[in-house]
Amino acid sequence: MAFDLAEHPHRRYNALTGEWVLVSPHRAKRPWQGQQEEVEKETRPAYDPKCYLCPGNERAGGEKNPPYTETFVFNNDFGALQENTPTGSFEKSGLLKAESERGICKVICFSPRHDLTLPDMAVADIRKVVDLWQNEYEELGKLDFINYVQIFENKGIIMGCSNPHPHGQIWAQSSIPVEPAKELVQQQNYYSANNRSLLHDYLAIELEEKKRIVVENEHFVALVPFWAVWPFETMIVSKRHFGNLSEMTEAEKDAYADSIKKLTTVYDKVFNVSFPYSAGIHQTPTDGQEHPGWHFHMHFYPPLLRSATVKKFMVGYEMLGNPQRDITPETAADRLRSLV
Amino acid sequence: MAFDLAEHPHRRYNALTGEWVLVSPHRAKRPWQGQQEEVEKETRPAYDPKCYLCPGNERAGGEKNPPYTETFVFNNDFGALQENTPTGSFEKSGLLKAESERGICKVICFSPRHDLTLPDMAVADIRKVVDLWQNEYEELGKLDFINYVQIFENKGIIMGCSNPHPHGQIWAQSSIPVEPAKELVQQQNYYSANNRSLLHDYLAIELEEKKRIVVENEHFVALVPFWAVWPFETMIVSKRHFGNLSEMTEAEKDAYADSIKKLTTVYDKVFNVSFPYSAGIHQTPTDGQEHPGWHFHMHFYPPLLRSATVKKFMVGYEMLGNPQRDITPETAADRLRSLV
Ligand SMILES: O=P(O)(O)O[C@H]1O[C@H](CO)[C@@H](O)[C@H](O)[C@H]1O
Ligand SMILES: O=P(O)(O)O[C@H]1O[C@H](CO)[C@@H](O)[C@H](O)[C@H]1O
Repeated sequence: MAFDLAEHPHRRYNALTGEWVLVSPHRAKRPWQGQQEEVEKETRPAYDPKCYLCPGNERAGGEKNPPYTETFVFNNDFGALQENTPTGSFEKSGLLKAESERGICKVICFSPRHDLTLPDMAVADIRKVVDLWQNEYEELGKLDFINYVQIFENKGIIMGCSNPHPHGQIWAQSSIPVEPAKELVQQQNYYSANNRSLLHDYLAIELEEKKRIVVENEHFVALVPFWAVWPFETMIVSKRHFGNLSEMTEAEKDAYADSIKKLTTVYDKVFNVSFPYSAGIHQTPTDGQEHPGWHFHMHFYPPLLRSATVKKFMVGYEMLGNPQRDITPETAADRLRSLV
Repeated sequence: MAFDLAEHPHRRYNALTGEWVLVSPHRAKRPWQGQQEEVEKETRPAYDPKCYLCPGNERAGGEKNPPYTETFVFNNDFGALQENTPTGSFEKSGLLKAESERGICKVICFSPRHDLTLPDMAVADIRKVVDLWQNEYEELGKLDFINYVQIFENKGIIMGCSNPHPHGQIWAQSSIPVEPAKELVQQQNYYSANNRSLLHDYLAIELEEKKRIVVENEHFVALVPFWAVWPFETMIVSKRHFGNLSEMTEAEKDAYADSIKKLTTVYDKVFNVSFPYSAGIHQTPTDGQEHPGWHFHMHFYPPLLRSATVKKFMVGYEMLGNPQRDITPETAADRLRSLV
C-alpha cells in the first residue's frame, strides 16, 4: 500500500509558521451528533436605527457617527489596547514576565449600508475599503510606538461578531504578535537563503500544480494553502513580491479588491449562507526595520465544516497537541473552485 | 502613572511554550451583543438506550459495549489516526512537506453512569480513571511507533463534544505534536540551565505568592497560570518533579484524583452549570529518550467568560496575532478560590 495524501493520515508542514497540522482524510465520514449553529436570518434593513455602526447613530460610548456615505473609521470605544498605557514591566525569576503594551484599536465600517457584506459590495466600493486600510496602515505605522498593524474582520455571530453591520477592525501595537513573528522568521530565513520570497516560490508551485487555486486575476491568487488548518481556509497572495499595502500599484489595489470580491462570493455559495470567517492581512511590521523577505498576504479562516450549522471544533487534541483537519486542502479547493 | 498589571494592557510570557498572551484588564466592561450559547439541559437518565457509550449499547461502528461497571476503553470507531497507515512522505522544493502519521485513537468512558461528570464522581472512582490513564499511557507508549500519548477530555457541546456520557479520549501517535514540542524545548532548556524543573521553580513562586492558587492538597496544586489564555484556564501541577503517570506513587494518584474532583467542583459553581472545558495531560513523550526536564501537568481550557451563555471568542486578532484575554489571571483565581 503506497502512502497517499488523499487517503492516509499525515502531518503537513506550514512553511509560513514552521508548525504542523494533522490531516485525517478518511475522517469526514464520521457521524455528527454534536452542536449545531444557528443560521443567521438573512434579511436586514439597509439602515437599522438600533445599530451603533449605522450612519448618524449613537455608539455605546456615547459618541454619534457622522452621516457617512462610503467607509468610516473610529477608535474602538472598548479597545483591548490603549494609547496612554504607561510603559513598564514585571519580572520574577525569569518565569513570571510581563511587559506593558501600548496600542490603538479602531473599527472600520466597510459601507453605510447595514444589509451588505463584502461579497455584496461592488469592487469599486471594496477598493475604497482597501484605500482606507492602506491609509490606516500608513498613519498608524508612522507613530513611533506602533511597530505592527493588524487589520482583520470577524464575520458572523459564530466568529464572535457582535454586530452584523459590515465592519472590520485594526489593532495596532508596540510589539509584533506571535503569529506574524513566526512568519517573519520563516520568511526572512527563506529570503536570506534564496534571495526570493518564500511566497513567491510557493506561489510558483501552486500556479503550476493548479490543485489548490480557487480564483486568480492579473495580480492576485486566492488558494487553499497546502498547510491549511480550517476546512475551507484560504489565502490571498500577491503575484508580485512586496511587503505591504503602501507598495501596491493602483492596478494591484483594484485587483486586490477584485480578488476579495471573488473569493467571498464563492464562500457564500458553499452552504448557501453568508459564510462566516475571520480574515486578516499579514504585512510588514512598522518597526522601522527592513523586512525584505515579507510577502503580502491575507488569511481567511472560516469555521464551517459540514454544513451551514456544523463547524469544525478546534478543541481538546487541537489545543493540547496541534490543529487537525478532516477534508484535505485539495478536496476543499476542488469544492470552492467548482463554485466560481 | 505607574504600570499596574491589574489595570493596564500588557503582554505576558508563557514560560512553558515561549509564546505571549495579550491581557486587557480594563476590557471586561464592554457591552456584549453577540452570540449566546445554549445552556445544556441538566437532567439526564443514569442509562440512555440511545447513547453509544452506555453499557450494553451498540456503537456507530456496529460493535456492542460490554456491560461495564467501572471504566471502559475502546478504539475510536472514527479515529483521526490509524494503526495501519503506510509510512511515506511527500516533499516539493522544501515548501510543500508532508509525512504519514501512524497512531491509535481511543475513547475512555469514565463511568457506566450516563448522568455523571467528573465532579459528580467519588474520588475513588476518579482514581480508577487515573489508573486507566496510566495503563493506557504505558501500553500505548510501549509500541515502537508510538512516541507521544495525548490524553484529553472535551466536555460540553460548546467544546464539540458530541455525547454527554462522561468520557475522554486518547490520541497516541508517532510524532510529538506542536504544543508538547514547545513545552519540551522550554522545559529542557530550563532544566539544563538550572538542574531543577521549570514547573518546580514556578510552583515555588506560586505557593509563596498565593495569588493564583485555586486548590491544593498534599501532592498537587491547581492554579491559574500567570500566562493563562482562557478566562478561567487552570493547570494541575504535581508538587514533586516527575514526568508521567507511571512515576506517581499510590498516594500521588489518590491526590491527583482528589485535585481533579476539587477543581471541577469549583468550576461547576462559577456559573452554576456543568462547566464546559477541554482538558488534557502533558507528560513525557514515549520516544525512548530521557526527558529529565519534563514536569507532569494537566491543562484545563474552559471557554466561558461572562456567563453560562457567553464565551470568549478566540477569533480575528487571536488567530492572526496572538491570544488575548480580558479579566486578569489573578481576578479569575480570586473568583475560583472564593467558590472552593
Ligand atoms: O472526537 P470527537 O469528540 O468526535 O470530536 C471532537 O474532538 C476532536 C479532538 O479534539 C476534534 O478534532 C473534533 O473537531 C471535535 O469535534
Ligand atoms: O472586538 P469585538 O468584535 O467586540 O470582539 C471580538 O473580536 C476580538 C478580536 O478578535 C476578540 O478579542 C473578541 O473575543 C471577539 O468577541
